[in-house]
Amino acid sequence: MKGFFQLVSSSEFIRLFEDFHPLDAEDVRVSESLGRTLAHSIMAPEPLPPFSRSTMDGYAVRARDTFGCSESEPALLKVAGEIFMGQSGQALTLKPGHAAAIWTGGELPSKSDAIVMVEYTNKLDSDTIEIFRPVAPGENIIHSGEDFEKDSTVLEKGQLLRPQDLGVLSGLGLTSVPVFKKPVVAIISTGDELVEPGKPLTPGKIWDINTTTLYALVDECGCVPVSLGIVEDDLDSMFNACTKALELPADIVLLSGGSSVGRRDFTLKVLEMVDNAELLAHGVSIRPGKPTILARKGNVALYGLPGHVGSAIVVFYLLVRPLLRKISGTDASMGLHRIKALTAEQIPSVIGREDYIRVSIQWGSDDSPHTANPVYGKSGLLNPLIRAEGLLVIDRDTEGLDQGEEAEVILFP
Amino acid sequence: MKGFFQLVSSSEFIRLFEDFHPLDAEDVRVSESLGRTLAHSIMAPEPLPPFSRSTMDGYAVRARDTFGCSESEPALLKVAGEIFMGQSGQALTLKPGHAAAIWTGGELPSKSDAIVMVEYTNKLDSDTIEIFRPVAPGENIIHSGEDFEKDSTVLEKGQLLRPQDLGVLSGLGLTSVPVFKKPVVAIISTGDELVEPGKPLTPGKIWDINTTTLYALVDECGCVPVSLGIVEDDLDSMFNACTKALELPADIVLLSGGSSVGRRDFTLKVLEMVDNAELLAHGVSIRPGKPTILARKGNVALYGLPGHVGSAIVVFYLLVRPLLRKISGTDASMGLHRIKALTAEQIPSVIGREDYIRVSIQWGSDDSPHTANPVYGKSGLLNPLIRAEGLLVIDRDTEGLDQGEEAEVILFP
Repeated sequence: MKGFFQLVSSSEFIRLFEDFHPLDAEDVRVSESLGRTLAHSIMAPEPLPPFSRSTMDGYAVRARDTFGCSESEPALLKVAGEIFMGQSGQALTLKPGHAAAIWTGGELPSKSDAIVMVEYTNKLDSDTIEIFRPVAPGENIIHSGEDFEKDSTVLEKGQLLRPQDLGVLSGLGLTSVPVFKKPVVAIISTGDELVEPGKPLTPGKIWDINTTTLYALVDECGCVPVSLGIVEDDLDSMFNACTKALELPADIVLLSGGSSVGRRDFTLKVLEMVDNAELLAHGVSIRPGKPTILARKGNVALYGLPGHVGSAIVVFYLLVRPLLRKISGTDASMGLHRIKALTAEQIPSVIGREDYIRVSIQWGSDDSPHTANPVYGKSGLLNPLIRAEGLLVIDRDTEGLDQGEEAEVILFP
Repeated sequence: MKGFFQLVSSSEFIRLFEDFHPLDAEDVRVSESLGRTLAHSIMAPEPLPPFSRSTMDGYAVRARDTFGCSESEPALLKVAGEIFMGQSGQALTLKPGHAAAIWTGGELPSKSDAIVMVEYTNKLDSDTIEIFRPVAPGENIIHSGEDFEKDSTVLEKGQLLRPQDLGVLSGLGLTSVPVFKKPVVAIISTGDELVEPGKPLTPGKIWDINTTTLYALVDECGCVPVSLGIVEDDLDSMFNACTKALELPADIVLLSGGSSVGRRDFTLKVLEMVDNAELLAHGVSIRPGKPTILARKGNVALYGLPGHVGSAIVVFYLLVRPLLRKISGTDASMGLHRIKALTAEQIPSVIGREDYIRVSIQWGSDDSPHTANPVYGKSGLLNPLIRAEGLLVIDRDTEGLDQGEEAEVILFP
């Protein structure tokens, strides 16, 4: 098992997710469901609105009593009462020639079929009004069930819940909602040179960067990160950490470091040691990110990520995030915004390899397009990472881009 | 105090935020700082990397020992040892004609000044290698401090912390980071017709939608929502709720409902009753959202939001979120993505008023632009809210848009 497996493209890699299925459903409180994915479609348990309501402040009337009225010949109606907010409107039955004061959202009285806006009325005395404009039946009314009829579909399975969706669920009186469970992601950082931040460094050691970064990337994606700490670069330690991760149980295991061909191939060996794990990919024709490994044990994915954090970030957005979204019940996309931008300089690339170039963006205006500035730096430097705002994509059929060419940029969240 | 104050535009409204200042700083754990805003710039406490490192697997050499070598005339070097990961490289001093095996990230031995990639070497016996390509001094090395020199600025005050930024903080050995406190936002829903979801409805009553929606909008923005529950539409109840909100203490108070001219103007009266509160705006020339009220008490903002949740959402994104971001230490922008899209149909508007039209997006491809479809519905309906993906902007100088005209769309997060 020397060297790379056959390299796959990023889209071939994503196709390997086909056999992974969404996690189980769980009920959570509506107030805690923001950003979660619906595990079942939601039907309206009751009609919404529950009763016919006024959409204006004014008077509930029988529309025919206003027909033909005008500024010069107002209709005269008797005010039979007021519908107070939160009180039953139907308790009042409107006789011909009568009107009832009503507020926006108030329940229509019985036998009324339209609302006249207060602006088109004039109060003559305590129980008589003039009306200057006729209304048609149904005017300024939302009928019971007009938003959602009882048992109609309100929200579809697989939908990400947004504030307005939660509002509608509340409007239906619901307090809990079925969503897919959040994926649990175990993070294992391997390397004999790594020290936990906050502890003192000894010569040849560095503080661990990857655990914090991957933890935050998982968090940003709405999933549950669990750090298993720093693990020594030896088979037993790594295998034990992996076993611990599977016992959590984790839905995805990220092993960071040790997956390049040069550095002892421990990750590959460890993944081969896991019972019933199947190696799906070793090597992706992308740069950075080539040494990525994917294995599968049932519905659990085990990743070997490149050791350099800059490469690990690219691989996370491109190849991990889509699987996290898929098993969260959404879809196998990155779920990131994309823009078009002109390249600020020539960018070399190679046919047969996808390149993801870190860029900062000079935002255009109405008349000028956006410009993408490559943020280069020696392999291993962190500086370019924090100056970058996104990844410019050069596909495998393109041999680099000229200065001023239009390209697609995937924006960081 | 009848009718509206003088209407202001949305940009005039945003300018009213000038006197609000960011909240105090607090130290939080780096692992919990995702999405927070830096309250102070971060300087490197130590150089990063802390020592000069190899960027390749291979051999550390004195570059001059490789000068002139080639495939046909390789340089022969004695292997003086191996630098193990996490061990001091400087403990070994390289003599002329010597090399030391080294891994990516390993510390350079003393007196070495370049790394030869393992691919350009051949091991003749246990302590002799051939080298086929010369290296220049500094090649395949990251020098100590090359990423960040000691005391140089790593991250700037006001920056939103992303996964890669947290990674760099960890690389510097930092475990906590100074960020601006999260704004606390009190939510008060007023209306005699409102019932808490989960409790039974009586005639004329509806389940409260606004509390859940505003709670989620605040949450989505990374702030701390506190719901004060449903409050009756009377002055004392509302004033008491407002007092309770200020005692939390809340940084922003949202009163939802009751701010239209028609419906008794309680919100305005309540805000006028608050000690030392100054009314900054009553009425904004936007649609929806006209009846919005802003008052200020010291650094606390009190909003009267329109009662209909659809309008409240627009006002939140346009006029509340920028202030939340400003007092969180970022800037007074919405922080939302914008795209250009062609209108799917003619959209009427009125000079002198900004319109924010709910639209769904038909996403274009490389060759075709995006299309924005207005999602209309009677005022008061919720259905259009959940079908919309963003807000199409028609500015105050534009009298509607023709079908196929390009317009700006603010995308929901």
